[in-house]
Amino acid sequence: MATESLTTGANAATTGTAADLHLLGATQAAQAIRDGAISATDYVAACLARIAEIDDLVQAWAFIDPDYALAQAALLDEHRARGAPIGRLHGVPVALKDIVDTEDMPTENGSVLHAGRRPSDDATIVRRLRAEGAIVVGKTVTTEFATFAPGKTRNPRNLAHTPGGSSSGSAAAVAAGMVPLAIGTQTNGSVIRPASFCGTVGFKPSFGSISRHGVLRTSRALDQIGVFSRSVEDAALLADVLFGHDENDPDTRLGARPDLARIASDDPPLPPRLAYVGTPIADELSDECREAFAELQRVLDIAALTMAEAFRGAWLSHQTIYEADLAHCLRTAYERGREHLSASLRGQIERGREVRAPDYLAAREHAESLYLGMEDWLEEYDAFVTPSAHGVAPAGLESTGSPAFCTLWTLCGMPAITLPLMRSESGLPIGVQLVGKRGDDARLLRTARWVVARLAES
Amino acid sequence: MATESLTTGANAATTGTAADLHLLGATQAAQAIRDGAISATDYVAACLARIAEIDDLVQAWAFIDPDYALAQAALLDEHRARGAPIGRLHGVPVALKDIVDTEDMPTENGSVLHAGRRPSDDATIVRRLRAEGAIVVGKTVTTEFATFAPGKTRNPRNLAHTPGGSSSGSAAAVAAGMVPLAIGTQTNGSVIRPASFCGTVGFKPSFGSISRHGVLRTSRALDQIGVFSRSVEDAALLADVLFGHDENDPDTRLGARPDLARIASDDPPLPPRLAYVGTPIADELSDECREAFAELQRVLDIAALTMAEAFRGAWLSHQTIYEADLAHCLRTAYERGREHLSASLRGQIERGREVRAPDYLAAREHAESLYLGMEDWLEEYDAFVTPSAHGVAPAGLESTGSPAFCTLWTLCGMPAITLPLMRSESGLPIGVQLVGKRGDDARLLRTARWVVARLAES
Repeated sequence: MATESLTTGANAATTGTAADLHLLGATQAAQAIRDGAISATDYVAACLARIAEIDDLVQAWAFIDPDYALAQAALLDEHRARGAPIGRLHGVPVALKDIVDTEDMPTENGSVLHAGRRPSDDATIVRRLRAEGAIVVGKTVTTEFATFAPGKTRNPRNLAHTPGGSSSGSAAAVAAGMVPLAIGTQTNGSVIRPASFCGTVGFKPSFGSISRHGVLRTSRALDQIGVFSRSVEDAALLADVLFGHDENDPDTRLGARPDLARIASDDPPLPPRLAYVGTPIADELSDECREAFAELQRVLDIAALTMAEAFRGAWLSHQTIYEADLAHCLRTAYERGREHLSASLRGQIERGREVRAPDYLAAREHAESLYLGMEDWLEEYDAFVTPSAHGVAPAGLESTGSPAFCTLWTLCGMPAITLPLMRSESGLPIGVQLVGKRGDDARLLRTARWVVARLAES
Repeated sequence: MATESLTTGANAATTGTAADLHLLGATQAAQAIRDGAISATDYVAACLARIAEIDDLVQAWAFIDPDYALAQAALLDEHRARGAPIGRLHGVPVALKDIVDTEDMPTENGSVLHAGRRPSDDATIVRRLRAEGAIVVGKTVTTEFATFAPGKTRNPRNLAHTPGGSSSGSAAAVAAGMVPLAIGTQTNGSVIRPASFCGTVGFKPSFGSISRHGVLRTSRALDQIGVFSRSVEDAALLADVLFGHDENDPDTRLGARPDLARIASDDPPLPPRLAYVGTPIADELSDECREAFAELQRVLDIAALTMAEAFRGAWLSHQTIYEADLAHCLRTAYERGREHLSASLRGQIERGREVRAPDYLAAREHAESLYLGMEDWLEEYDAFVTPSAHGVAPAGLESTGSPAFCTLWTLCGMPAITLPLMRSESGLPIGVQLVGKRGDDARLLRTARWVVARLAES
């Protein structure tokens, strides 16, 4: 099967004809179901048919039960037929990275050590999804414990290339039109990178926006929930459902929730000011990515800023925190079953076990000081704009590629979104990453929507 | 000079006759100044006279400038004379532990390494005090970097005994009638223990209640601000001024502030239910303390609960966190001037440097799980009641005594107050410690006031 056949139409018109009903976006599908133009059953059946058609090749799913998905859809259709109030995602199928606990499906965390694991409760975000009428279709493939060792998923744009990781299946499922929405997580570059490689929208909100209760913990300081969709509008809708304080995740912010979906759909009061920030790793960009991005800078009138040398230490600080946190969070897996861990994960944990606590605390403070060093710029600019990765998805499935173009923003807990706006000669997508001020997620989404519209005009 | 002469009247009537004006409590003094019955200058002059009378013996002060205190008082009297609005502590002198930054006085942190140090800004709590009209009289002696090595202060109840630490001067100054209010900090037992040893009230509110911005950091996870006074009412007044979110201390809680002073002055709706919790170190109590406490249990009808064995690890978890945090926070002092540190502090830092980050993180989680294990009890009981220390202040000035009876509550960030309600055969005081639910500081103060009144009746 040629690459193109897996993605044809994924960015096409979204009118819900029978042939491409699976490509309808979440916002429009929810509206059509609310209006009675289509049923939840129709929509889910179309997604399941798409999955049946191509998942043997893409391998996005760790667990799926089509009959159960249809049964949920039938109940939701009955619910609406009774005239009962319906939620914002009524009848919309959502895929969950297989590290998000569900009480009705296994959650295996990408490791044989957790094979067959059945959580007794839904994660907080799963409760929120179900309360809004979303249908949990199944669990998508993750790397080993959401770290580096790849799962079985292939890139739907070219099956010989990695989809990226660790939210591999979530990115691939959305990009290939199997579901309109999926949940992922990012501790380094695990939402932005696979979305960029697979050519779809990925949004990783500010640290503290979305509860991680019931989601595999690999780093309390760095783990952040993100979403996949095929439009900014849909990412805003899903994030809007997920945002909010949770007493079970003490790092979630207490405060008024932004109305993400509404603000994201507004036009900016003024044309947003955008800045490219030359990080210390900017020279690692591939040539084709550099050229495509230079063109984008001209079209969007993006200012250029240069980071101080002090930022060079950010990647090491991230590694110090991440490896120590991994060693803590996966202590039992390591102590009882290290022979079942990949060599790369064992290495991370073994380095993490040797990190000294004062160095760990210094790395945490370093991250905070770096963020403060950027905050002034984000008063002046609406967003930073950078490539989402070094370049296109690397060939081969042995590695999920480098997260380095996400590391700094994840370390600092800043909101980031990748948009599939560039393309290589080979036809593989390259994402454009917008990064905003911590807590200013709604403005970032609004700016992202403006960028998409602006490029569509040009 | 005999011990008694230093403390006579400290718990006596509080009518403001000229002879004992320095013994007037903060609440009554603020009211008298507001009403014009006394001036700020009168009150401060009386306190300064008391300091001049006995501080050569007690040595509570690291820095004091009587003329500057009187000049502040004169300005406040003028301010009131003009009819300008006045604050809740208008004209009330307050002592600050010498690790709290002041822009107008040195802050030496109890170490020769910081001799002559002049901060450029007031700590957040100092701004709050001055905004309410309080007079910062001077800085009180602390141990070395607020750790274990003693300063010069003596116990005003018996000069041959330690005042406790690390807020040694603050506790001694209030107990000896030099000032009605003082600020201290507690990372292990540094407010409750010296208050108990010196025979005064010490209140260490819930973690996250009071900003630590501008206060020497020795442990972000454990450092907590506390207050000294001679009555529960005065502790509530001072804490009320200090409580509140500060964006410069991200660990301060965002949320509605309790009206501590008002709630503390209310009668409980029902007689409070009190529980003695037998911790794993209960058998370390001195005999005289055990006997005095047994009598108290009978009088106050205190239930007895026994802690699970799992709590035995709390002291080690505290040590792991504290020493690693010390190594981080005092890194520069150690790396540049370790020969000027005491052997005990060097030992703490050197152990802290070797703590592995995963063990540190496990200790942090352990603390949280211990707290959750106690929360149910605190639904049933208004407060835990325990001795504040092993017994009376130990003889000698080489050690500040053991903080072990405070460690668990500090580790768990629970509010604690010590009341000078017991006394040994020798006449030295023994404090009774009440411990409440995190965030429930107002109820704890109300319960403490009830306990004091109940014992006065019996």
